[in-house]
Amino acid sequence: MGSAAASPPPSRKPTQDELKRVAAHRAVEFVEPGMTLGLGTGSTAAHALDRLGDLLRAGALPGVAGVPTSHKTEAHAARVGIPLLPLGGGGGLEKIHLSIDGADEVDPDLNLVKGRGGSLLREKMIEGAGDRFVVIVDESKLVPRLGCTGAVPVEVVPFGARHTLGLIRKVFDGLTGFHARLRTVPAGANGEDSESEAPFVTDNSNYILEMFFVDGIRGDLPDISDRLLRITGVVEHGMFLGMATTVIVANKDGTVAVINKK
Amino acid sequence: MGSAAASPPPSRKPTQDELKRVAAHRAVEFVEPGMTLGLGTGSTAAHALDRLGDLLRAGALPGVAGVPTSHKTEAHAARVGIPLLPLGGGGGLEKIHLSIDGADEVDPDLNLVKGRGGSLLREKMIEGAGDRFVVIVDESKLVPRLGCTGAVPVEVVPFGARHTLGLIRKVFDGLTGFHARLRTVPAGANGEDSESEAPFVTDNSNYILEMFFVDGIRGDLPDISDRLLRITGVVEHGMFLGMATTVIVANKDGTVAVINKK
Repeated sequence: MGSAAASPPPSRKPTQDELKRVAAHRAVEFVEPGMTLGLGTGSTAAHALDRLGDLLRAGALPGVAGVPTSHKTEAHAARVGIPLLPLGGGGGLEKIHLSIDGADEVDPDLNLVKGRGGSLLREKMIEGAGDRFVVIVDESKLVPRLGCTGAVPVEVVPFGARHTLGLIRKVFDGLTGFHARLRTVPAGANGEDSESEAPFVTDNSNYILEMFFVDGIRGDLPDISDRLLRITGVVEHGMFLGMATTVIVANKDGTVAVINKK
Repeated sequence: MGSAAASPPPSRKPTQDELKRVAAHRAVEFVEPGMTLGLGTGSTAAHALDRLGDLLRAGALPGVAGVPTSHKTEAHAARVGIPLLPLGGGGGLEKIHLSIDGADEVDPDLNLVKGRGGSLLREKMIEGAGDRFVVIVDESKLVPRLGCTGAVPVEVVPFGARHTLGLIRKVFDGLTGFHARLRTVPAGANGEDSESEAPFVTDNSNYILEMFFVDGIRGDLPDISDRLLRITGVVEHGMFLGMATTVIVANKDGTVAVINKK
């Protein structure tokens, strides 16, 4: 075992995908026999799924089972042979010991932005259910403040979504350069037939509003979280505050840093 | 016009439905020509719809239009001739001047419990969008504390609903007599074919969890609201705090009291 197989040849710089794999393999070292795992979604989490599948086939992790955070992860996990818990009504969430997932951004306090891939609600529910949450990122995801590198997503009910967008703008009223918009996808991507862009639809049949900040979110993040959650149409947002217990960072030079929550 | 037509014969006690109608007619006196109205759901709000229809047909309220809080109200309003605003993406919510609706409970600070009928999310969104919210109840709905007379509903995403139920129980951990459960309906009521009870499904395809308190909710209601909203699977709850601007109460003796927000 060990992580030697995941290291790039010493003669060249590792690619971003190789860095993700190195971090993912390091995260899987936290998994112990008998654990129930929250299984993340995205290109980094996918490397963890592959690694888990390899170890399960080798007999190294007896009794391990997973709870997927998306339909895509469910299919991937099944393909590589990870036993999955049935989730009717949320059964199984109580049993999660450890979750592993990537993140879009990580701040110095290990707060995260997640959900640019569109699975934020299930990720937040599952990854908040266990005792430990190991996040795997490459160095480019480390930010001084959340919201520095792109959208912070907010999942909203479709009914009144335009009104909800207006109320979200009010939360950040007067903040220079702030803007927010409905996430859309090319026509037909949700299965409908239209010439224009259509709203992106989540696993829970909701919409995603995207918030953009010029230089990241300044201010009291828990307070901003509460103000967003108090808006009637808001279901959940992509700021994962105080949830990550360990962040594994793959640096550009191929080294790996493990940062534990203080 | 006037409210004489709604008064019961003086020789006997008014029925509860007559009381509701008296209060509803008084509420409709707040409506002025040109207003856009949030239209509530339920047996009391239905009397207001009928009255609005009568006044519109009589030409007394030119330019009035409505935004319905449920499919049922939409059908009722259309039937009695109230023009409705299209609500694609929530257009129209910005224009609401006044909402009229019933409530399940009203406390001394005009906080409400609503949503026992299952439409809490749309009601909260629409009734929170306007400047004024007139609530119509009969005397039996006045309570010393919210949660005294029955369920306080919480709308949750179906995914993980059992887990969400567990987290809601934790909010009220140690509170004597508190219990919470999934709202169900007789088999087949949602269209499915089953021999057992099925979860009640809201207009937004969510589930409803019901919270029960032995002697009402004691404690800081805004804080309890925030703690519920922070739970990942919670979409909205049925405590309408600080939203009502006027409560119209039909007393058992047939008199009507108008209570304005302090």
